Amino acid sequence: MLPLSILSSGKALPAHRVTSAELDITLAKPSGYVEKRSGIRYRYHAGPDESQSALAARALDDALARGGIDASSIDLLLSAAGVQEQALPSTACRILDLAGLRPGTPGFDISASCVSFLVALEVAAGLLNAGAHRRIAIVASDLASRGIDWGCPEASLIFGDGAAAVVVERGDGTRGIESYRLQTFPEGKAYCEIRAGGTRRNPRVGVDAADFLFRMHGKRVFKLSASVLDGLLAGLLDDAHVTLDDIDTIVPHQASHLGMQHVAARLKVAPERVVDIYATHGNQVAASIPTALHEAFLTGRAQAGQRVMLVGTAAGLTVGGMIIRL
Amino acid sequence: MLPLSILSSGKALPAHRVTSAELDITLAKPSGYVEKRSGIRYRYHAGPDESQSALAARALDDALARGGIDASSIDLLLSAAGVQEQALPSTACRILDLAGLRPGTPGFDISASCVSFLVALEVAAGLLNAGAHRRIAIVASDLASRGIDWGCPEASLIFGDGAAAVVVERGDGTRGIESYRLQTFPEGKAYCEIRAGGTRRNPRVGVDAADFLFRMHGKRVFKLSASVLDGLLAGLLDDAHVTLDDIDTIVPHQASHLGMQHVAARLKVAPERVVDIYATHGNQVAASIPTALHEAFLTGRAQAGQRVMLVGTAAGLTVGGMIIRL
Repeated sequence: MLPLSILSSGKALPAHRVTSAELDITLAKPSGYVEKRSGIRYRYHAGPDESQSALAARALDDALARGGIDASSIDLLLSAAGVQEQALPSTACRILDLAGLRPGTPGFDISASCVSFLVALEVAAGLLNAGAHRRIAIVASDLASRGIDWGCPEASLIFGDGAAAVVVERGDGTRGIESYRLQTFPEGKAYCEIRAGGTRRNPRVGVDAADFLFRMHGKRVFKLSASVLDGLLAGLLDDAHVTLDDIDTIVPHQASHLGMQHVAARLKVAPERVVDIYATHGNQVAASIPTALHEAFLTGRAQAGQRVMLVGTAAGLTVGGMIIRL
Repeated sequence: MLPLSILSSGKALPAHRVTSAELDITLAKPSGYVEKRSGIRYRYHAGPDESQSALAARALDDALARGGIDASSIDLLLSAAGVQEQALPSTACRILDLAGLRPGTPGFDISASCVSFLVALEVAAGLLNAGAHRRIAIVASDLASRGIDWGCPEASLIFGDGAAAVVVERGDGTRGIESYRLQTFPEGKAYCEIRAGGTRRNPRVGVDAADFLFRMHGKRVFKLSASVLDGLLAGLLDDAHVTLDDIDTIVPHQASHLGMQHVAARLKVAPERVVDIYATHGNQVAASIPTALHEAFLTGRAQAGQRVMLVGTAAGLTVGGMIIRL
């Protein structure tokens, strides 16, 4: 086991709640269409004046307040977002500017799309066990609403904005990461993408408005994920020397209504063992897993001594999972 | 010391070499102006059909070939770029698609602007020592030419494109990272930036062509860096329990002509102890430090048993340094 102790968690949501009923009207659909199609009652979308870094800083504040943790005790901030706030500098710098940590506290970005938080937890554990840091804040944030193509029902109705944070230490070695697996299958690199935003599509070499919108080939994502997910889950359990019965709670990426059902069906576990906040948050990209984990902490479904499995599929195509002893 | 062994290094450059004499003509300046102003004889700029990920994959190929390393032995690819190829998915996925590693090999992005490579080395060391991976490829790549504002002499003449890679393992514990420091001062977050590319400036909330261009306030960067760099360098030496005389070679970020001179003057070391490839590469953003390190390996200035200091300032404003026993 790789020692890691989660001291506290928190989350933040934009002020504006967007109901599916409201979207029915906006998109000129029959009443009930959006909720039926998306499986979501409401999600939150940032207004034009709200920023990703401000939302992230609020989530970190929440985690610090809930844990009674002094902001000045944090010695590294990891930003784990699917899409960054801007091309340069890192999103971490922009969060640090609002976070009230000690001057000079370092930060950098980790990005693996919707499983960025998983990766950041593993990276944090590595750094803490190497003695490079003592107390790390991980903040996941995404404003998916900025890239929604409202002309595409499959990829537009499911997204919500949000941020969530945890504070971690090495701990005393009695709790930590029992297994971790990450796999990338780049044949799926164009199955979910926003083509602009970097060196590939920009004004110098050519770009158009559609390049800033999120594109998804849902069926291809589903097919490729389905072909590799069983192996990943079996590997996670094997590596941790446990069976599914030893897992108290499963915290999946809140990818989609069908995606969530698929994970439960695949695992053959009762739905109540799976944390599901999808209907009231939507798919929050990198913020989904930590927001669902925070919900599990708040509702007593993730407690000290228990074992939690985090798992998700992500653009890239990347799949990742982790078993943590809390 | 945190065990880490660098097995091999490599680099790649775009085909097109842009001389300062050529830029004098393009920019309608007197002969010799660009070289005098920038301190660069030539740099390389990618053509419109060249991609960041293809350049990165070539650098990785070079590192693998030079080390006689089987591509299938790599079990993680870390992409360490200042600016990504696109907003989603990670640049690592796009590199993996071209890299010929084993199917499923995971990858993710680490971003801390011009010191991303330093941070990636530390993260890799953490993961290797945690037993999460056995052999990691770190690939730094940037196509700064995509964001150059040719109307701004200060920020346009100094940049070159490039990529460099290293392959690392934990090793036997006799070599590794003797000290590592990273600090972020977010009051400098707007001193070097590209505002577009993410959730802040995009077509949904408003963006204009200038938002895609790199902006720099050179004097502010210099002043803030100068105020924190001495402390960082002293801390690095203290943590490693060495003095500057114990450092064989210094590999700074190739930020600018003045920046390079400043590091040498500040350290009071003879110029020949500082690796300087700036005149023939320019500032290659995150690719600068590993390209200069590769040069040090090739020219025998970084050899097994020697001690090398990597150091740089970066957008954010972030400063970082590392002392490695090779």
